[in-house]
Amino acid sequence: MGNADYECHKVAVPSPKPFLQSLKSGVKETFFPDDPFRQFKNQPPLKKVLLGIQYLVPILEWAPRYTLQFFKADLIAGITIASLAVPQGISYASLANLPPTIGLYSSFVPPLLYAMLGSSRDLAVGTLAVVSLLMASMLSKAVNPTENPKAYLQLALTATFFAGVFQASLGIFRLGFIVDFLSHATIVGFMGGAATIVCLQQLKGILGLVHFTHETDLVSVMRSVLSQTHKWRWESAVLGFCFLCFLLLTRYFSKKKAALFWINAMAPLTSVILGSVLAYFTHAEKHGVQVIGHLKQGLNPPSVSELAFGSPHLLTAIKTGIIIGIISLAEGIAVGRSFAMFKNYHIDGNKEMIAFGMMNIAGSCTSCYLTGGPFSRSAVNFNAGCKSAVSNIVMATAVMFTLLFLTPLFHYTPLVVLSSIIIAAMLGLIDYAAAIHLWKLDKFDFIVCMGAYLGVVLGSIEIGLIIAVTVSSLRVLLSVARPRTFALGIIPNSGIYRSIDQYPNASSVPGVLILQIDAPIYFANANYLRERISRWIYEEEDRLKSSGEASLHYVILDMSAIGGIDTSGLSMLEEVKKTIDRKGLKLLLANPRSEVIKKMDKSKFIETIGQEWIYLTVGEAVAACNFMLHICKSNPNAVEYGTQDNV
Amino acid sequence: MGNADYECHKVAVPSPKPFLQSLKSGVKETFFPDDPFRQFKNQPPLKKVLLGIQYLVPILEWAPRYTLQFFKADLIAGITIASLAVPQGISYASLANLPPTIGLYSSFVPPLLYAMLGSSRDLAVGTLAVVSLLMASMLSKAVNPTENPKAYLQLALTATFFAGVFQASLGIFRLGFIVDFLSHATIVGFMGGAATIVCLQQLKGILGLVHFTHETDLVSVMRSVLSQTHKWRWESAVLGFCFLCFLLLTRYFSKKKAALFWINAMAPLTSVILGSVLAYFTHAEKHGVQVIGHLKQGLNPPSVSELAFGSPHLLTAIKTGIIIGIISLAEGIAVGRSFAMFKNYHIDGNKEMIAFGMMNIAGSCTSCYLTGGPFSRSAVNFNAGCKSAVSNIVMATAVMFTLLFLTPLFHYTPLVVLSSIIIAAMLGLIDYAAAIHLWKLDKFDFIVCMGAYLGVVLGSIEIGLIIAVTVSSLRVLLSVARPRTFALGIIPNSGIYRSIDQYPNASSVPGVLILQIDAPIYFANANYLRERISRWIYEEEDRLKSSGEASLHYVILDMSAIGGIDTSGLSMLEEVKKTIDRKGLKLLLANPRSEVIKKMDKSKFIETIGQEWIYLTVGEAVAACNFMLHICKSNPNAVEYGTQDNV
Repeated sequence: MGNADYECHKVAVPSPKPFLQSLKSGVKETFFPDDPFRQFKNQPPLKKVLLGIQYLVPILEWAPRYTLQFFKADLIAGITIASLAVPQGISYASLANLPPTIGLYSSFVPPLLYAMLGSSRDLAVGTLAVVSLLMASMLSKAVNPTENPKAYLQLALTATFFAGVFQASLGIFRLGFIVDFLSHATIVGFMGGAATIVCLQQLKGILGLVHFTHETDLVSVMRSVLSQTHKWRWESAVLGFCFLCFLLLTRYFSKKKAALFWINAMAPLTSVILGSVLAYFTHAEKHGVQVIGHLKQGLNPPSVSELAFGSPHLLTAIKTGIIIGIISLAEGIAVGRSFAMFKNYHIDGNKEMIAFGMMNIAGSCTSCYLTGGPFSRSAVNFNAGCKSAVSNIVMATAVMFTLLFLTPLFHYTPLVVLSSIIIAAMLGLIDYAAAIHLWKLDKFDFIVCMGAYLGVVLGSIEIGLIIAVTVSSLRVLLSVARPRTFALGIIPNSGIYRSIDQYPNASSVPGVLILQIDAPIYFANANYLRERISRWIYEEEDRLKSSGEASLHYVILDMSAIGGIDTSGLSMLEEVKKTIDRKGLKLLLANPRSEVIKKMDKSKFIETIGQEWIYLTVGEAVAACNFMLHICKSNPNAVEYGTQDNV
Repeated sequence: MGNADYECHKVAVPSPKPFLQSLKSGVKETFFPDDPFRQFKNQPPLKKVLLGIQYLVPILEWAPRYTLQFFKADLIAGITIASLAVPQGISYASLANLPPTIGLYSSFVPPLLYAMLGSSRDLAVGTLAVVSLLMASMLSKAVNPTENPKAYLQLALTATFFAGVFQASLGIFRLGFIVDFLSHATIVGFMGGAATIVCLQQLKGILGLVHFTHETDLVSVMRSVLSQTHKWRWESAVLGFCFLCFLLLTRYFSKKKAALFWINAMAPLTSVILGSVLAYFTHAEKHGVQVIGHLKQGLNPPSVSELAFGSPHLLTAIKTGIIIGIISLAEGIAVGRSFAMFKNYHIDGNKEMIAFGMMNIAGSCTSCYLTGGPFSRSAVNFNAGCKSAVSNIVMATAVMFTLLFLTPLFHYTPLVVLSSIIIAAMLGLIDYAAAIHLWKLDKFDFIVCMGAYLGVVLGSIEIGLIIAVTVSSLRVLLSVARPRTFALGIIPNSGIYRSIDQYPNASSVPGVLILQIDAPIYFANANYLRERISRWIYEEEDRLKSSGEASLHYVILDMSAIGGIDTSGLSMLEEVKKTIDRKGLKLLLANPRSEVIKKMDKSKFIETIGQEWIYLTVGEAVAACNFMLHICKSNPNAVEYGTQDNV
């Protein structure tokens, strides 16, 4: 092997970095991949402090550039979303088993905080239907909201506080990637399922039922509805159906023409006004149509003293806080990112988490429950032409005005109108087109999506979430545990080696088996790969025997796609080498990457296999094999091998 | 782009396979990677049945070829391991809080079954120290073994039954890869920690203490030992120390010379005989040296009726069964594989699991508790020159003989001798050399190992196991969530593109940024990769600006190492494309693999990016970029680009 005609390129073994340096770069890649401190580099100290404050409170960064032009746009958008926020605030609070005013409070303080701390220009802050229902179903198990409304409210505020703390810590400790484990497929299935059960819950309001199950699954709800047919109120049902049609029609028209977005945006408030007027003049509450009743006037009372840290249900509050915190983050950040994509600006996920967290901590101290960035409201905000987070300030001001002066007007609002508003909003969340898309593209993602959907609808929201996260993680683990291996062949008239499976015209090299492994070699796949490589070898030997071709002499392992290796992987390679040696074959390696060759160097595997059997490209390794095969067959002077050997 | 001078090789888009066919090949790769049915192919039906029976009961396969020569070797090996099995059986049963005879029973029936069903020729079946202690610590929480020994024994048998069922099902359903998730580093740390606490537990026997803590952690044990200094029995301690020295010395000598292996193997039995004789003549039991006492004579009584399926602690039994089942599997299969490597035969992991499972199910019905393939005994078997599983039959016969006739001889065996035997065996399991090796090779594996060790020693066996499995899985998930990305450059005087990080002499191509991603693109890393790619681009732009080089025009994504993609990954690619377009740059793809190009085709991403921007090699993509850059700069006839473009 002294002859180096074909051996023109050596595989570099990077010199080992000091432990601390490699630790530092590892931490940076893991927790600061977006390099958030980039702007601080090479700046004078005072500027650094200023940039730091602007980094933490983005409003300081953009407020100086804010113009009257922008304000006009934000004013319109803000009023539009306020007209949505008021009825939605009241409706979603009832989903969470909380007093309607809590829903209104939640559209006042949190949006103001988000406007200062958030980095999205399009996100409209507000309560979330799915999270409200989830909160109700988790907290009701600990405290009965009808029997003990005060303790229930305290628990809800405490859960909100912990959700905020959890969200902020995720951001501060740069653990935002945890949210990434809720894949798109999971969210589609989960949201669809949650929307379905929210709609089912509204049957209570639509049919004017007083008693209703506390369970959320399909079976319990349908049993509860069908067992009370004699208590259905037709007046309520007719009213609800009319308003639902109205809301769906307005959405249909505004979808057809983007300029008509305001019809859709105004429809809920219009329904509320129409419904209230109707109820007032027909005295509907005497005909089985329930109305909201008295609403307390005035702004958010402070609620620090309501946080029940000493409660026996503290663990429930923490658990609920973590789950609703992560779900509202997942939705909020996905929404923020999509609109940022449209307008070509950047959202820093970890910064957003801190903003969401601060907003909910502050909210829990001012009688607000969990808020996030709901898709529906943000889409209306975007369509209404918002320019910055000022639209949230405008919305908060409008809600403040409502709280101070307009609450008496909601006295006669029928509950059935609120149910219609919720159903109309939820139907938009059942994204069956996305599910079909998933089926077409990726069966596994479809299974995840349906798992989440059915888990939520037939089991509970938590079960659906657990199913989806488990199945998605299993997929990732499975892809690591069962990496694909390919046999490579040469593509005719080129020096390129590619998978014979993908390129059927590629032909294998006589006497040489070239294998490519598609994943880092870790403990989870080391045993599998050892068995799989053995199988490749004996299958190739069988094939050659049955077709009468030249027998196998060399096995080349193309390591281009092996990004890392652990100690189990290294001992696997040693065993593979031994097995191949024992069969009388020779193992060659092609293109080991820096992480792998470093470890192979440290473990002395390079010495075991021999430096001269490691090549930079598959082409060079094949050329070496051909060279040696020819030495064996004929006299060494008649050597002939390709020069196109660089793949 | 009509000119195709450089565009000589097209990327193949494999035609989509029917759903069922791809499902079938996926299932085969996942569950049958070793193709166990290979030998059945092209065989007549009768032969198939015969092969099938031989597959299930391997003894039928090798028994006809068995010779007298082999039997001589197996006889010696069998007697050697029997001399180890008797004292170990009694000692380990006491670790599990079970009567000593149960330990002897466990070395009779299970080895016979394994000899018929197992495929290892070197594994010696027996009880395991770590598993015994683990069983004791898990079951004692449910039933107190001193207060209610009968219920405790029933629970132990039930746990053994479920361990067997679990092991057999893992094998039958081809889920053996679950065992792979216990990495080598985990096992080193876990075994070391378990051996440490087993040694600590022996302080009870060595110091002749009667009352002792039921906890296993370092702090509880040391507190229990140090709070009873006045109860220490020096006679017991001196005796124990002498025997321990004797055992360690014999091991030291037999390690120095392989031919002296029998000294080590015989030492425990010699200690037992010496100790018993000494105790008999000195009436040691009256001087604070506890002895075994009466042992019941006779073979294993059946125990099917003892299996406590109706017990209120059934859940504990199932949980214990699963944990001890998987740990004994992990050790047994690792041991079997290592010795099979030495002798160049193959062990089928899933078949071994079935054999272990059947052995434990049968064991639980014949008064045996959990057995496996302990390393120490198997190593002695191997060194004694065993040729087949017949050595296990010989051992079982010797144990049967002991049970029938020799149990009275153990009446005077001092417990302290058993403690010395356990300590001597356990000290060999603390593999500090392996831990140092891990530290040198792979810091992360070292952390896993130390996590398992400290978790076991300071917490409990379960805590150690949970820590190790969690940390190892986190590593795998992290490697997927944070894949490495590299910028590629061309290696001088070659057409080869490699990471500039690994090959510092590689130079980047002017106006072109070549990026390589090292992992499948899944939901878990899609967001990260989008941010990281953006950062690569602006960092490259900054670098070019500050060095005054030509500005960036093209971004080439080398997809060679991307083995798979899901829907989140596809939308990530679309977003990257949009971002790059918006910056006025152009995105090119190189060498997308079959899974990826199939999905890109289905999702119409190929149309979005344009078929003409996808190249087979980085070299061809660079050539295309250079070609277009030259068109822009000079007249089209002055085109110059490399021909060595095939990497």
